[in-house]
Amino acid sequence: MTNQATAVVLLSGGLDSATTLALAQRDGFVCHAIAFDYGQRHRFELEAAARVAQQQQAASFRLMAINLAAFGHSALTDTAIAVPEGESGAGIPVTYVPARNTVFLSLALAFAETLGANDIFIGVNSQDYSGYPDCRPDFIQAFERLARLATRAGVEGAAMRIHAPLQYQSKAEIIRLGSSLGVDYGLTRSCYQLDERGRACGLCDSCRLRAAGFAAVGIPDPTPYQDRP
Amino acid sequence: MTNQATAVVLLSGGLDSATTLALAQRDGFVCHAIAFDYGQRHRFELEAAARVAQQQQAASFRLMAINLAAFGHSALTDTAIAVPEGESGAGIPVTYVPARNTVFLSLALAFAETLGANDIFIGVNSQDYSGYPDCRPDFIQAFERLARLATRAGVEGAAMRIHAPLQYQSKAEIIRLGSSLGVDYGLTRSCYQLDERGRACGLCDSCRLRAAGFAAVGIPDPTPYQDRP
Repeated sequence: MTNQATAVVLLSGGLDSATTLALAQRDGFVCHAIAFDYGQRHRFELEAAARVAQQQQAASFRLMAINLAAFGHSALTDTAIAVPEGESGAGIPVTYVPARNTVFLSLALAFAETLGANDIFIGVNSQDYSGYPDCRPDFIQAFERLARLATRAGVEGAAMRIHAPLQYQSKAEIIRLGSSLGVDYGLTRSCYQLDERGRACGLCDSCRLRAAGFAAVGIPDPTPYQDRP
Repeated sequence: MTNQATAVVLLSGGLDSATTLALAQRDGFVCHAIAFDYGQRHRFELEAAARVAQQQQAASFRLMAINLAAFGHSALTDTAIAVPEGESGAGIPVTYVPARNTVFLSLALAFAETLGANDIFIGVNSQDYSGYPDCRPDFIQAFERLARLATRAGVEGAAMRIHAPLQYQSKAEIIRLGSSLGVDYGLTRSCYQLDERGRACGLCDSCRLRAAGFAAVGIPDPTPYQDRP
């Protein structure tokens, strides 16, 4: 009988976090998944997160409500701001949600502390999302340092660890890795403007990165797309 | 006409955060107050926070729901764990809520980012609450460092600041300071087990510290207490 370590894994319903869960499980962690209903435009991605947790046999799945939309100022929570289509420009995109990963990691830390877990997994990626400040390695390292100072376990000497195993991977590398671990990407959604049936637009930044990843690996893209005129 | 800086101030309904708001206002900040409904046992402290914000003329008051009670493991959110009465022991008390200040500061940071504010005020105090890991100066400094890496403003070169002006003050010093700034401590509540009418128990750690503070300053304690047999 092995004594497995417990981890908290952030799930978004997307491709990266599903792969991150598979990696944490491969590395022997008993994984408790958490997803956040933060006022995002569409609910389908939360259903996708629940399906991923179930299909990959997470130890538990928890959905937590936190109304970041009340603060506004992002195309992902504010329907008055359009999601850009086509090539992405320079700088921080309008789809950035203020302090989102800081909030999510803080809540994951609270959850980890109550579970007695010292490990948190997050699917951030600095290749594809270099425009988001809270996806960068510096940010993840700063949060890990904070976690050691912020918690009972940290104060008592435990090394709280924030794992970002996809930090330096391309979308194609992530898809290749996840496929080898049995991730069912047909369950995941990445689109910034899913329709009510969970079909992707095929035009936003996130759709373009995802489709290019499948094309580069040579795996058929399982994403259902909207019919566009 | 002066161009005043904007700040976010965390309010709890307690004595320390009311004093912190008064200090931020004295220093010229236009203060937006935020309080958290995190599943605490009693609602009266949230009403106290709203009254403090109104009486001290905060620019706005916002109450945000975040269900930390779902994670359990604290006497402040879990009615199955008794609040200790009498002298406090060594170590981290059972009234510690896992990662609470990390979560609160993260949400304050999201709010600050949408306001375009670079300053956040929090009433933590390492004299009275040395048992809470997330009240210590190291923690506050680590969060400030994180905030600079986590936000659009930080990435663009702004110095995000986490102000903890009461960090090294005794309860008596805080009361003396707040009184000189016109804080109405009769509106505030500090008790861990308020009754439904907002009356304090007079027995928990927080009540004892508060009462001793008023006694040391020689100001009549305006706290309404429960009648005990």
